[in-house]
Amino acid sequence: METFDTIRKRCSLKGHISGREIEPEKINLILEAGQLAPSARNYQPWRFIVVQDRKVVEKLVKAFSESNQVMVEATVILVVCARAGDDVIKNGLEYYLFDVGLAVENMVLAATALGIITHLMTAFDEAMVKQILHIPADVRAVVATPLAYPVEASYDEAAQARLSARTRKDLKELVLINQWSEPEPA
Amino acid sequence: METFDTIRKRCSLKGHISGREIEPEKINLILEAGQLAPSARNYQPWRFIVVQDRKVVEKLVKAFSESNQVMVEATVILVVCARAGDDVIKNGLEYYLFDVGLAVENMVLAATALGIITHLMTAFDEAMVKQILHIPADVRAVVATPLAYPVEASYDEAAQARLSARTRKDLKELVLINQWSEPEPA
Repeated sequence: METFDTIRKRCSLKGHISGREIEPEKINLILEAGQLAPSARNYQPWRFIVVQDRKVVEKLVKAFSESNQVMVEATVILVVCARAGDDVIKNGLEYYLFDVGLAVENMVLAATALGIITHLMTAFDEAMVKQILHIPADVRAVVATPLAYPVEASYDEAAQARLSARTRKDLKELVLINQWSEPEPA
Repeated sequence: METFDTIRKRCSLKGHISGREIEPEKINLILEAGQLAPSARNYQPWRFIVVQDRKVVEKLVKAFSESNQVMVEATVILVVCARAGDDVIKNGLEYYLFDVGLAVENMVLAATALGIITHLMTAFDEAMVKQILHIPADVRAVVATPLAYPVEASYDEAAQARLSARTRKDLKELVLINQWSEPEPA
């Protein structure tokens, strides 16, 4: 898929997850996309936990919020972790979170290009996730997403509706020229 | 450009920046890519400062490290800012940094697809950057990058060499299946 199409078509539609298996080579392409992201001083602080064991998926999803319970349908849940100490910390800015964002967006776009749904989630019980996945105390579970094929019968229309209804701040509000300025009141 | 090609070709080659102007519509496509990134609860904490005024570019680059002084050649420097308080903070995790990472990767890939060089930089004097760009005290300047066409005569070969020499952790080290585990010693 063309890069701009991928960027424009990416959306989060957890309500349309099918239980269709994802081919291992496609999972690998997604992981490779994360691997290739840039990071401060090339530290690559990210670690990708690929949860595929049904029993672990079922336990893990219980750590997600009520509205995210539908993710139990997914055959793969990806949990992205990192340690603050594995990356630059500058004036209190912990760049591991920024770098993990770079890698995750690469993976989300790679999945989109392959016709695979993602839905980034941060509203989970981190202590529970860490316990289930045996994540060490100093490692943070930053984000989780299902990797899932969409339900074919319903997805295209739902995606179209979602993209048409997408709300984003206007570029006038986001973009500042040559220096900071507060946006004009609307 | 096809999504995976873009992800694989993205690299940071500040040594090959030309002074060729970037068309406003291409700058807009890059900013739109940032705008379309996902964020926690759709908070969109990012703000994009597009520095194009020569005098401001020249002042700004002085806040960068010695090795980044070459960026003065670029006709555009993009500075991405955000406030921690404009996004989710959960168990001390400030998700604005993660979300800014998502938006920045979209922009970096959009630029790559347009044949425009980026080079993410975090090694700058943030206080100086904030003073030059009149950024409020509670807003962080997270990352800066030039947006620049490459020097045509030298770029392709340099990019090829860079990509061949690229060092990334092996997927065996980055990827964990079903639960955390420490990688086998090499």
